[in-house]
Amino acid sequence: MVHEFHNPVRSVYGAGALSSLPKLLDGRRATLVVFPEARQLGLLDRLQALLGESLAGTIDDVRPNPDVAELKALYETFWRDPAAGEVLVAVGGGSAIDTAKALMVGTQGGGFDELVRALAAGKGFVPARCKTLIAVPTTAGTGSEVTPWATVWDRAAQKKYSLHLPQTWPAIALIDPDLMLSLPASVTLQSGLDALSHALESIWNVNANPLSDTFAVAAVHDILDALPKLMARLDDKGLRGRMALAALKAGMAFSNTRTALAHSISYEMTLRYGLPHGIACSFPLPMVLERAIGRDAGRDAVLAQALGPLDHAVQRLSGFIERLGVKTRFADYGVDHEQAEQMVAYALAGARGKNFIGTALQEAA
Amino acid sequence: MVHEFHNPVRSVYGAGALSSLPKLLDGRRATLVVFPEARQLGLLDRLQALLGESLAGTIDDVRPNPDVAELKALYETFWRDPAAGEVLVAVGGGSAIDTAKALMVGTQGGGFDELVRALAAGKGFVPARCKTLIAVPTTAGTGSEVTPWATVWDRAAQKKYSLHLPQTWPAIALIDPDLMLSLPASVTLQSGLDALSHALESIWNVNANPLSDTFAVAAVHDILDALPKLMARLDDKGLRGRMALAALKAGMAFSNTRTALAHSISYEMTLRYGLPHGIACSFPLPMVLERAIGRDAGRDAVLAQALGPLDHAVQRLSGFIERLGVKTRFADYGVDHEQAEQMVAYALAGARGKNFIGTALQEAA
Repeated sequence: MVHEFHNPVRSVYGAGALSSLPKLLDGRRATLVVFPEARQLGLLDRLQALLGESLAGTIDDVRPNPDVAELKALYETFWRDPAAGEVLVAVGGGSAIDTAKALMVGTQGGGFDELVRALAAGKGFVPARCKTLIAVPTTAGTGSEVTPWATVWDRAAQKKYSLHLPQTWPAIALIDPDLMLSLPASVTLQSGLDALSHALESIWNVNANPLSDTFAVAAVHDILDALPKLMARLDDKGLRGRMALAALKAGMAFSNTRTALAHSISYEMTLRYGLPHGIACSFPLPMVLERAIGRDAGRDAVLAQALGPLDHAVQRLSGFIERLGVKTRFADYGVDHEQAEQMVAYALAGARGKNFIGTALQEAA
Repeated sequence: MVHEFHNPVRSVYGAGALSSLPKLLDGRRATLVVFPEARQLGLLDRLQALLGESLAGTIDDVRPNPDVAELKALYETFWRDPAAGEVLVAVGGGSAIDTAKALMVGTQGGGFDELVRALAAGKGFVPARCKTLIAVPTTAGTGSEVTPWATVWDRAAQKKYSLHLPQTWPAIALIDPDLMLSLPASVTLQSGLDALSHALESIWNVNANPLSDTFAVAAVHDILDALPKLMARLDDKGLRGRMALAALKAGMAFSNTRTALAHSISYEMTLRYGLPHGIACSFPLPMVLERAIGRDAGRDAVLAQALGPLDHAVQRLSGFIERLGVKTRFADYGVDHEQAEQMVAYALAGARGKNFIGTALQEAA
């Protein structure tokens, strides 16, 4: 079995790392992509001051879970501007970074529909023009700063597209845990559980490899220890730093495996029930762990490294998640047994579901 | 404190991975750089057959610890050949890969002296032309396949130069533990201890960061467990695979920190006493560990993650190395107390010595 690992992103991290931004831009002009609340938090002012003469423009109307209908105008305005600069600096959660990934790859004529058609058809897309991305996460969870994927939604078509091109790796992930100090409890929890899901999903994954496992095991250890402590002390700089690093490690892990069954389930739960992503992809983790254990001795060994002895690991994991206030059964979300069975079957057949070791072995059997 | 981690190398690994070489070349022509014994081992024939029409040439007179005097002719012949292809495939230990790194960066006129003058002056060198490197290690130890550094010796001047350019990262590290099955015990031991030294030196290092630590801790665990077992069963494919991965992880760790005091000591021991690199950089590890412990609480915590409780860690580490048949005191190598003191003082002042946490803290005090 031949494995591969590759992650070309340069990570720059530490409390106060944001102030390195001008040095990292090194004179290049940049367009800022930020979440709307950045203005009232004073973050937009700070960023604009930091960029100074390098600032080419600001896009601050980024929506959560960006939809093709909203992205079209942003994209076409951005590519019409000859002075937009060669760099995109995306500051925010997954939505801001994913929006910037959609913006960074330019079609020949600057029209967005060409890109959407390629995404919808699952076809390759060769950008005619590209921007360089510096990703500055303000949550500890999405991992988008160290992956080439962006999730783009098409609510009208009830679809979720995955943008994934060799050109959509960020050049630099700039991770400053001080930016996370003002995150409310809900977002802290959701993003922390998203990171836990990335780490575990990279282990029970047909694309798992020893380097992704190294990052995943370290991330799980960090999150199991640091997340409950952080939920009790949201203003603790040290704990914010530990969760920022844990999310980075989880991102490094799943950047080479993609996600698996829990994420496949989550997309349905978000589209149909409006569940926030971090909850939708973490509540099923104990169920998926139960399906994963015993499939493969090598995977079991790595799961045990991450979670401890496997005989009560499912109960320990659901206890961990429930103690954080997140229910771990479909019924808790109003999904009855039959609906849940259908959803899992549908999720197993999805692109991410097929990454789950249980699926592949079932098909091979 | 702001940290950075960046390693753009694509790792491809697993038993039998060598057969991916044609796919990885994807039609590009390549010059092979191999160690002389590859011919009698049948490896050169296999490589030439694998490359087929892509084979542009073969350099098989690579010397251990490549010296500028020997490299000059190789370099100038290589760059005079317009049909040499755009890729260098280096197959061997650190010397073959380091030789290829010296070859891959071309001066304007193709003369080697310009490159050596830049190395000797410690000045930047901007290559006029570059080749792409695919590094195929046949030992589990140097880590050269995932670092941009090459060590080039100038025995006439009693100097060791470090080639290190943004252009000298391998594009691909192709790691096939089956290539290591024929390694004799001596080389298996020396390269395994070199990897241990890379991992530990990346921890007691002023450039250490949480991602390098993640790789280093995993590498130390793997080596402490797998190396003694492998020394007892050199033909065990599983153990060869585990050591290949441990060396890869150690390489990923020190690719972002460089080495420290033990390597600084080793250069003198190799130049003056002819000690093989893997022994020269590992026999001082317990001494250096003793100097490292207690310098910094954060570093102590990572050392304890790697080595267990620190109160008897020095004795456990020297016991581990001595049980492998390697003595851990200067006196064992004919270096008396006064010479050893001088050597350590000289090593602390060297470029790698300055990376040691003890040095920096002593200077700051």
